[in-house]
Order: sequence, then C-alpha cells, then structure tokens
Amino acid sequence: MKRLLIIGIGTGDPDHLTFQAAKAIAAADVFLIVDKGEAKHDLARLRHDLIEAHGRPPYRVVEVRDPERDRTAPAYTAAVEDWRSHRARIYESFITDELADGQTGALLVWGDPGVYDSTLAALEEVEAEFAHEVVPGISSISALTARHRVALTRVGRPVHITTGRRLAAEGATADDVLVMLDAACSFTEAGAGFHIYWGAYLGTPDEILISGPVDEVADRIRGARAEARARKGWIMDTYLLRRTSPGS
Amino acid sequence: MKRLLIIGIGTGDPDHLTFQAAKAIAAADVFLIVDKGEAKHDLARLRHDLIEAHGRPPYRVVEVRDPERDRTAPAYTAAVEDWRSHRARIYESFITDELADGQTGALLVWGDPGVYDSTLAALEEVEAEFAHEVVPGISSISALTARHRVALTRVGRPVHITTGRRLAAEGATADDVLVMLDAACSFTEAGAGFHIYWGAYLGTPDEILISGPVDEVADRIRGARAEARARKGWIMDTYLLRRTSPGS
Ligand SMILES: C[S@@+](CC[C@H](N)C(=O)[O-])C[C@H]1O[C@@H](n2cnc3c(N)ncnc32)[C@H](O)[C@@H]1O
Ligand SMILES: C[S@@+](CC[C@H](N)C(=O)[O-])C[C@H]1O[C@@H](n2cnc3c(N)ncnc32)[C@H](O)[C@@H]1O
Repeated sequence: MKRLLIIGIGTGDPDHLTFQAAKAIAAADVFLIVDKGEAKHDLARLRHDLIEAHGRPPYRVVEVRDPERDRTAPAYTAAVEDWRSHRARIYESFITDELADGQTGALLVWGDPGVYDSTLAALEEVEAEFAHEVVPGISSISALTARHRVALTRVGRPVHITTGRRLAAEGATADDVLVMLDAACSFTEAGAGFHIYWGAYLGTPDEILISGPVDEVADRIRGARAEARARKGWIMDTYLLRRTSPGS
Repeated sequence: MKRLLIIGIGTGDPDHLTFQAAKAIAAADVFLIVDKGEAKHDLARLRHDLIEAHGRPPYRVVEVRDPERDRTAPAYTAAVEDWRSHRARIYESFITDELADGQTGALLVWGDPGVYDSTLAALEEVEAEFAHEVVPGISSISALTARHRVALTRVGRPVHITTGRRLAAEGATADDVLVMLDAACSFTEAGAGFHIYWGAYLGTPDEILISGPVDEVADRIRGARAEARARKGWIMDTYLLRRTSPGS
C-alpha cells in the first residue's frame, strides 16, 4: 500500500508546526512541492525549510510547477473545479510514479488542511490506490484571533466563516463573521456598527495587524494592504467582523 | 511588568502542541492550573504532562479548584457571566499574588483559545496590570475534520460554527454547520438531507469517529455517546453537518 500524509504547517511561522506535523514530516520518504510561481516564493521557502528541519534522510523532494489559478476570474467555482482536476492529475502522477509500494508521500498544506484548501477535494478525484491521513494545522483563523488576543466566538453565539466575495454579495450574515479570500477589501459591505480585527502575513516577519471600528480604520487598512501588496507582490489577509452591540 | 501567556494546547493529543506553545511553556515561571473536578481528570493530567515535558525548571505550578459551571442551566449566558467574573477573580489573584514583577505566568487552554473558551473574556475583567500574549492551538474543529479527512469549508462556500443549543433552536442555518457544546445530540434538528461527521474525545486514546447520513447514523451516535459518557464520566464531542445536495 502507498500512504499519503496531508500535513498542515500553519500560516508562516515555522513554530506554528505541531509535534504531530514534525513527526509526519520525519515519516515521509517523498515530498511533493507544487511551485505556485515566483510571487509566492516566501511560501514555497517555508515548505523547504520545514522539510530540511524535520525530514529524516534519505528523502526525496519532487517539485512540480503549477501556477496558481486566477482568483479574480468571474466564474470562480468553475475555475476552481478545473484547477482541482488539474491538481488531481498532479497528485495521481505523484502517487503512481514517485511512490513505491510501502512508501510514504507527504504534501505540506498551508494553515489547516480543512480551511479553504482544495487538496482533500482534489485527492478525492485521484484513481490510484492509496491510504491517507490528515494532520491538522494552525489556520489563519486561529493565528488572526491569537494575534489580536480576541475570541473567535462569543459566549453561546455563532460565528460565520465566509469569503470576501460572499460578504460583498450578502453583507454580514451574523454578528460575528470571519472573512478569508478577500481581494477587494469588502469589509465596508458589512454595514454599520462593526469592529474589525484585520491581519496580513500572519505569523511572518511582515505581519500587519489593524483593528478598530470599520468606519474609522477602513482607509488605513486599504492603504496598508495596497502598499504591502505592491512591495511584496502578494498578500494574504483575513479579518473578523464583530457587531458592536449584537442582538441575541 | 508582569506577563501572562495564554497557550492553546490542542484537544488531547500531546503532539497537537505547536513548537510555539512548547517554547511558551518553557518561558513560564509560574503556571496556573484550574482544577475542574474529578470527572475531567484526564484533561487536567494532560496539562501536567505538558508542563513536565516542556517546562524549564525552576518553575512553580499553582493549582486552584473551581468546579465547572453547569452547562445545562437554563440561563446559560447568565451562568457563564457569573462564572466568568469568578474566573476573573482567580486570574486577578494569580497575577497579584503569584507573579512577581518581570515574571511570566502561563495558562494552558484546551484546544484553541479563540474557540468557545472564556479565558480571554475573563482576563478583560481583571484589573491588575499585566501584558499578555495568546498562542494559537489546534481546535477540536481542526482535529475533527482532519480525523474525518474532510474539509471544513467547501469551495467558495460559508460554514457556520454554532452550539448545540442554537442548532436545536434555529435548525441548520447553512449547508455546512459545525456544532460544539452539544449535550443533547441536537443533530437530528438540522432537518433532512444532511451528512454528519461526528467525533468524540478527538486526539485521545478514547477517540470515537462516526459518519454517514444523519438519519442512518443518529442512533448509532446516540448509543456510542451514552455508553462512552457513562463509562468515562464525561464526554466532549463535536460534529460537522453537511447538506448532501447544497443550493448555491
Ligand atoms: C486558500 S486559503 C488557505 C487557508 C489556509 N488553509 C488556512 O488554514 O489558513 C488562503 C486564504 O487564507 C488566509 N490566509 C492564509 N494565510 C494567511 C496569513 N499568513 N495571514 C493572513 N491571512 C492568511 C487569507 O484569507 C487567504 O486569502
Ligand atoms: C468549552 S469548548 C472548548 C473548545 C476548545 N477551545 C477548542 O478549541 O476545541 C468545549 C467543546 O469543544 C469541543 N471539544 C473540545 N475538545 C474536544 C475533543 N477532544 N473531542 C471532541 N470535541 C471536543 C466539544 O464540542 C466541547 O463541548
């Protein structure tokens, strides 16, 4: 049997790694690294660093180039599905061609593998036979709230996790909304009366944190975001919107 | 200045600990352990084990007994608020009486400190002067989805995180609902057409995983839950409800 480990590595800080993830890295014979192109070089480097720090030689690293999908495409879901089938074929070849029977392969996934990541969905389309395990990781959600020293959930209350695209289309669907994948600073679409806890490059040396009433800090966030994005060539940011005087 | 570290320790598996959390434990001079009573002895033991494994002597451990609040109380929010003020006083004494200037105290929090945990809210009521940092941890949400090898979020779709109490009152408010703090097996309240991924004692040797269409596995979950709870004296379980053919 061939075994595949899908390992959450946290959101940028090498110390986000869990002992379980470090042991999983040490157990792997072959790593697959999908190179998403120049811009996100820092992200690829973390994977290499973690493999070097925790891998147990002899191991091999297989690199495949697969530029990131266009997140601004209007047909977002269709684009993702295309991309997923494409990814499935990459995983399929990895399992078929690079893993011998009895060997363990590993994929290092940003953050937590369960949070807005297509690896598990793509693996469902793979037809080769393999067993797999998933190692949880620190998500950007946990990283964001920890750095702002704020709870994701208030006592007995729900939180909605959603995308920037949906927030823009639907407005705030709850008193507490955690937004990811927002390329358009849609936080002003939530309406009045929200506090925002915003974070970019969480866990990395470039980390930026801004919080305050949305109407007071929106411009500051937009400015910081545009400036950082221009300077680094990419950005990843997440935020929690919290209604200041919630109903019940 | 006195410094307090609020450290997420994951949900039972000592290997859920991150390197950041291990370093935070090593940086602490004094640990506060709040003993919640006999039943959850296993949980208290994990804290002691982690301190022994990662603490850097000399350190002190201060134990305070504070039985858990009654989660079945009808006035749940009021009960939590009472409990929180009470907790705030415990933290206040710890900071005032046990921490010298320049020293670092630590609280080990189950799972991720941001997820349905009152520590951060209680600390807001503390009047003593202190600086604090939060270290994110693997939540039972990440542990659940990893063990079921399923994503929390589907492409471009939201997920609602809520409590068993709210699910019972409101039904499923989304196609993907993650439920915590459910003492009453409220999953059948979601309505027809849901798949459930249920997990108890995640990350521990007692872990139980059951998944399937709600109407097919509900009885099996109820039975397993009642049996395990009777045997161990306590249970912690979480589940993801996923509508089988979602709208858009
Ligand atoms: C494709 S999703 C992957 C999420 C990842 N699996 C996780 O657990 O955080 C990418 C989105 O995650 C968020 N994100 C990931 N890493 C981040 C970081 N270091 N700082 C801020 N946001 C981050 C951003 O919202 C970004 O658009
Ligand atoms: C007071 S909350 C604390 C949550 C914790 N901060 C976290 O990040 O998971 C307790 C609830 O978390 C869930 N939970 C915590 N640990 C769990 C475990 N090991 N297995 C299953 N559910 C767990 C259950 O829903 C339980 O009712």
